[in-house]
Amino acid sequence: MSELRQDPISGRWVVIAEERAKRPRAFVADNSPVSLEGCPFCEGHEDETPRELFVIREENAEQSEHQWRVRVVRNKYPALELDAAPLATGLLPTDRAVDVAARDTLPGVGSHEVIIESPEHVLRTTDMSPDQLTDVLVAYRERLRALREDPRLKHALVFKNVGTAAGATLEHAHSQLIALPFVPPLIEEELQGAERYYERHGESVFDVILRDELAAGERIVAENDGFVAFCPFASRAPYEMWIMPRVHASHYEETEEPQLGELARLLHDVMHRLDVVLHQPAYNHVIHSGPFDRQNMHHYHWYVEVVPRVTKIAGFEWATGCVINVVQPEKAAEQLRAVMKQA
Amino acid sequence: MSELRQDPISGRWVVIAEERAKRPRAFVADNSPVSLEGCPFCEGHEDETPRELFVIREENAEQSEHQWRVRVVRNKYPALELDAAPLATGLLPTDRAVDVAARDTLPGVGSHEVIIESPEHVLRTTDMSPDQLTDVLVAYRERLRALREDPRLKHALVFKNVGTAAGATLEHAHSQLIALPFVPPLIEEELQGAERYYERHGESVFDVILRDELAAGERIVAENDGFVAFCPFASRAPYEMWIMPRVHASHYEETEEPQLGELARLLHDVMHRLDVVLHQPAYNHVIHSGPFDRQNMHHYHWYVEVVPRVTKIAGFEWATGCVINVVQPEKAAEQLRAVMKQA
Repeated sequence: MSELRQDPISGRWVVIAEERAKRPRAFVADNSPVSLEGCPFCEGHEDETPRELFVIREENAEQSEHQWRVRVVRNKYPALELDAAPLATGLLPTDRAVDVAARDTLPGVGSHEVIIESPEHVLRTTDMSPDQLTDVLVAYRERLRALREDPRLKHALVFKNVGTAAGATLEHAHSQLIALPFVPPLIEEELQGAERYYERHGESVFDVILRDELAAGERIVAENDGFVAFCPFASRAPYEMWIMPRVHASHYEETEEPQLGELARLLHDVMHRLDVVLHQPAYNHVIHSGPFDRQNMHHYHWYVEVVPRVTKIAGFEWATGCVINVVQPEKAAEQLRAVMKQA
Repeated sequence: MSELRQDPISGRWVVIAEERAKRPRAFVADNSPVSLEGCPFCEGHEDETPRELFVIREENAEQSEHQWRVRVVRNKYPALELDAAPLATGLLPTDRAVDVAARDTLPGVGSHEVIIESPEHVLRTTDMSPDQLTDVLVAYRERLRALREDPRLKHALVFKNVGTAAGATLEHAHSQLIALPFVPPLIEEELQGAERYYERHGESVFDVILRDELAAGERIVAENDGFVAFCPFASRAPYEMWIMPRVHASHYEETEEPQLGELARLLHDVMHRLDVVLHQPAYNHVIHSGPFDRQNMHHYHWYVEVVPRVTKIAGFEWATGCVINVVQPEKAAEQLRAVMKQA
């Protein structure tokens, strides 16, 4: 059973999850990811994963456990669990200055899920077609819609780790979803910054950024009818990209299927560009989306963050939260833009 | 010339430092560190490093460039530079909600220094004697004392990266110092949390933590007359340790030499324990200390953080600032405590 512990100085929550140390390759010394042989995510190995939470089957498929296109299962080594001891809504202290002496721990209530993106042993986002990626994006949405009904959960992060440098321990293409009983600090910081901007200027800082980026052009990587991909002005990582919907929306899970298809096509396009420029780097995808209990926010905007992991997080970044990015976003965008679009 | 860019949403500053991409092994693909052959930090290679800023020589040594014990030089690939275009004191907007449309960049004023810890090609903290480590700790102090006189600089972080997983690109034992024209976000968060606690309870949260840890005992790793080492209650990393002085002090650079000797002995002791338990892992050392222009703070306390880097920072941690630690601090402390102290 995992625990939530609050840092008595900063007020930040840490998840102490011993289950995860049981993973075969939890520690860095063993850093070759689980490959084809012994892969529990391949078709035919369905009984090696925990309970299925959601599935998209092949059309006209029998209701057998095979013939699926995307499966969502519980994480076998969960950081958090929904069946942890019951936690009353609002139990988490919102007052950050807790009583240090008490050092209470709270049960790690939440959900930790794995989205298996393909029945075949594919590795990278670019190994899948835009149609396959659309299925994956639909699966994200359906799980977010289901989880937001649980009043104990405040926020969920959907993310993907590809390559050992990005934290992957299995190479078969998969994403993860972690739903938390609190809004995590960097998301809360975004929400507060966006709210402050809205109060002052009467419009969303995200909408302003999108308009400015389109007008300037120098940081744009690619775009289509629904979405725009660009390297943000204050990129935290070399070749970082954000993919933003053109239409204002604060929550990913409200997105309709034709829009998800557009997103899948642009995601495939920009990941191909990244593979060419950085020779198939390790990377993370992250979906930034609003908290479950604050719907239709004027000031916040959902987006997909793509983070190539080509530099290390050293002592400076760990301790300060300030990052050093060694590539100018304008130059990164120029290189990515120059890659010929795949047919 | 590097630039400071402010994220228009969160208000956080990012250092865009293209110089650092020129390092021979700046990107992950090339991740074997520079070893003995071709090491610019070894004795006799003094002309391969930039200008010397501070040196501790062998007693009775001639004033030649050899026969030194510790040297501090500018970083050859600096993230920030002191001779960047002049920046008026207080130019950095303290109001976080800047004008997005302006997207101004500021020159990356600061100092990025390398503390070469030994003339010999040693690798780990435990490869040096406590006396050698004392020299290193004195060098940190002297550089901090010199830099705090520059009114453009607000804070400096002293840190050490050992092993590629911890961000090292050279294996010869060295630390770094980065002085910034602002207080970085996680340090500011600590300062604010400590201030809030002090206002409410009339004592420093750090003093309370130290007293509680000594009383509880279960997270203590080792101690001596001047310092206590423990695994903090809400450790962010497996086997994370903090080394805190017993006497309240907010700024590292005020520490007297006998105290630095005590710190060196305890640091050597706990790093030996860590090497035994985790089989010589990659790690970071970080010194948390107060801002230059706020001396003698009642609420803040300097300390050394030791972070073994045995798990990766994946998409979840990158995006949320929330971390998952797979080892209970009490169990980590128990294992570290059980290691026999070196003679």
